[in-house]
Amino acid sequence: MNQPQTPDFAKGGGILPVIAQDHETGEVLMLAYMNKEAWEKTVKTGKLHYWSRSRRKLWLKGETSGHVQTVRAIFLDCDGDAILAQVEQAGGAACHTGYRSCFHRRLEKDAFVVVGEPVFDPREIYKK
Amino acid sequence: MNQPQTPDFAKGGGILPVIAQDHETGEVLMLAYMNKEAWEKTVKTGKLHYWSRSRRKLWLKGETSGHVQTVRAIFLDCDGDAILAQVEQAGGAACHTGYRSCFHRRLEKDAFVVVGEPVFDPREIYKK
Repeated sequence: MNQPQTPDFAKGGGILPVIAQDHETGEVLMLAYMNKEAWEKTVKTGKLHYWSRSRRKLWLKGETSGHVQTVRAIFLDCDGDAILAQVEQAGGAACHTGYRSCFHRRLEKDAFVVVGEPVFDPREIYKK
Repeated sequence: MNQPQTPDFAKGGGILPVIAQDHETGEVLMLAYMNKEAWEKTVKTGKLHYWSRSRRKLWLKGETSGHVQTVRAIFLDCDGDAILAQVEQAGGAACHTGYRSCFHRRLEKDAFVVVGEPVFDPREIYKK
């Protein structure tokens, strides 16, 4: 079967979703988006860059917190419209709330319940 | 910090990305999308349902191949606009190409190179 050889940004209107996964534990840390420029900067620098949909700007993950993500391996999916980045997560946490993973709430019956403990206090990291 | 208590489908125009991860190995199997109906069917049945963007229809993963995904745990991210589903993958493969994961191509220098071996022959499964 023919599979796209490069990321296909067109299908998602110029962006595609990127999964950041801890390269050692396999834990899924976060999901964010890249446009073509973010993709190129990520490949060039080896640090994850994303496109912020809400702020509409390119964003180096960790530029404020220092919690940068260093690429260990990058995978493209069969359709070419999603990326998996296996990363080394600086600071031990990817989520701006202080938790290791953005996916720190698990569905229990009818409600999402926080799982685990925060790694840092966001008030100290972001000064707000 | 206030976090949405239910999946936010509005931000993505009625859909949101869902990461399917093997509940035992942590391997990321695929990324697809859910609309509200797919989400509700997934929670109700315990089998992953998605919204196909290209076919514009609700889709039970495995309805053709038998490679259904049974929910073991579901997580919502901090912004409420992405879902992580830890699943038991029937048939040992999630990808319609026959590979275990849709993310079976790794970036090596300038090109994506197939990693691993296919689990099944899609011509036999899909009869096309």
